[in-house]
This record gives sequence, structure tokens and C-alpha cells, in this order.
Amino acid sequence: MYIELLKQMKKGLGQMDQWLERASAYAAAKSFDPEVFLSARLAPDQFPLVRQIQIACDTPKLAAARLTGKDAPSFPDTEKTCAELRERIKKTIAFLDTVTEADLAGAATRTVTQPRWEGKTMTGADYFLEHAVPNFYFHLAHTYALLRHNGVDLGKRDFLGPLTMRDPS
Amino acid sequence: MYIELLKQMKKGLGQMDQWLERASAYAAAKSFDPEVFLSARLAPDQFPLVRQIQIACDTPKLAAARLTGKDAPSFPDTEKTCAELRERIKKTIAFLDTVTEADLAGAATRTVTQPRWEGKTMTGADYFLEHAVPNFYFHLAHTYALLRHNGVDLGKRDFLGPLTMRDPS
Repeated sequence: MYIELLKQMKKGLGQMDQWLERASAYAAAKSFDPEVFLSARLAPDQFPLVRQIQIACDTPKLAAARLTGKDAPSFPDTEKTCAELRERIKKTIAFLDTVTEADLAGAATRTVTQPRWEGKTMTGADYFLEHAVPNFYFHLAHTYALLRHNGVDLGKRDFLGPLTMRDPS
Repeated sequence: MYIELLKQMKKGLGQMDQWLERASAYAAAKSFDPEVFLSARLAPDQFPLVRQIQIACDTPKLAAARLTGKDAPSFPDTEKTCAELRERIKKTIAFLDTVTEADLAGAATRTVTQPRWEGKTMTGADYFLEHAVPNFYFHLAHTYALLRHNGVDLGKRDFLGPLTMRDPS
């Protein structure tokens, strides 16, 4: 189910891209600089929107790399505009598009670590389910919440995106 | 991986329970009524905290029921206090505790529908990955964001909860 969950994260990033388009249109309609959104925060000691989006991109990117052994492309955290953030989202999706189910064959039993873990490790399975998936949705939902809090007209359907529904038989 | 994802949702509910305990202590320290949190919103047309928590409970509860055929307990949306919300969380976790991997054997190919879908259906797999998991984390993260926005001292570790880490070998 690793590939399926990564696909859902990719879908979430695609939705986030649409929110930024909507945010830019809202700013244009109200005649304010859309870049104002980038520094918006819900609490003074929480990350601003720009960082929420960077981490929402990096979480599935790094998860895909750590679970497959692929090299993840590096994106410096230098975005100053909605357009640059949308470019990062696009590049993240492009990287995720390169990951196949076969690449993820040994994902569950890989050993994952990060510099900040000071030598401690997690299995690929634990890392993905306990860390990557909740973290991704945390930053996706915070991005959504920040835009809603600042007046952008979004709804739950914009969060979930299209659902694979079948017509009544 | 259905049982593993449900376990993660159960863990998230346990974390949420701790946030409410923290929120109540914060209210006591600042001498305000903790029930004030229940009507907090991030946008006037978003659900308040009480509804975020009710849906965060109902999403894995209903997913577990729909994917197993078990009857889910019904919890009327009548909570007026943090204590009552914590009771709902506790009862939701107790229900999720009854779900076994064997119960979920045919989950992926079940047919899922809801009254509001007007006869349309989703497979269990699509419903769980496209709808239940993102929805759960949406409401969990909004609950967290609302408490943070209102001054409760929480951090990402409180969101994720303890991680299954192994010591350096």
C-alpha cells in the first residue's frame, strides 16, 4: 500500500497547487499582494505558510527516497512567491511520478534515519505510517487552514480532490 | 495495511485526548472556561472545534464499520464540555480496539456508500485511501491548529505521538 499512499500524497499536492491558484486570484480580486499569504501563521510559534508548503513537499519526496533508495532532488527553501511554490510542488510531483511499485518492494524493512535522530532508526514501515503520512497531512491541512483563515474560498472537496465513485448499478 | 492505518488513527485520537487535557489545564491556569474552546473557529464558515473532534472520531469509527460490516456505536453530537468530548474519544478508541485484521480481510473490495452520495459507491480501498484517511487527518490537524491558534502549548511531537525508534546498534 506504499505506492497507493504516495499516490494520495501526490494527489494532495496537486490539490494544494490549485489552492495557491485560488489564493492568487483572491488576492488579485481584492488588490493585495498574494505574497502576503506566505508569511501567514496561525500561531506566532508555528511555521508560516511558505514553510508549511515546503515541508508538505519534502515529506513525500524524502519518504519516497528513503523507502526506495532513490536520490531525492534537492529544493533550496528560497521561495518568495506563490509561483515559485507552485513550481516546487510541480517538481515534487514529477519526482514522485518516477517511483514505481517495484521500487518500493523492500520498503517495509528498510532502515530509516535522519540526522536529528542521533543514530536512532525506524523501520520503513514504522517511519512511513507513524511519521511520513501524518506529517504530510499535518502540513497539507495547515496550508489549507491558513488559506481559509485568510479568506480564500475553499471547501472540503478542494481538500480531498475528486473521488473515484461508481454510478448506481 | 488497513489495520495499521486504523491503528495510527487510534493513536491520533489518543494524542487528541491529551491535547484536550492540556487545553483544560491552560484554561484553568488562565482562569477561563475551557468550554470556550469548543466554539473556536479558524474561519466563520468552517466547523468549530467541537465538530472537528466529533468528525475526527466518526471518520475512523465509520471506516472501521464500513470496511468490516460491524455495527458502529452511535454517538449523538451533543457534547458541551471537554470532558464529554474526551469520553467520545475514549468510546471511539474502545470500538476501534474490537477491530481485528481478520475482520478487515475483504475490506478492499467492499462496496461503500453514504446517503449523501445519492446511490454512488466507492470500493473499500478507494474510500479508505481517498476519503477516510485524508479526512481523519484533516480534522485531527484542524483540532490541533485551533488549540494552537488559541494559545495551547502543543508541538509536533504532541501531534505525532511517540515514534517506534530503535537505538543505535
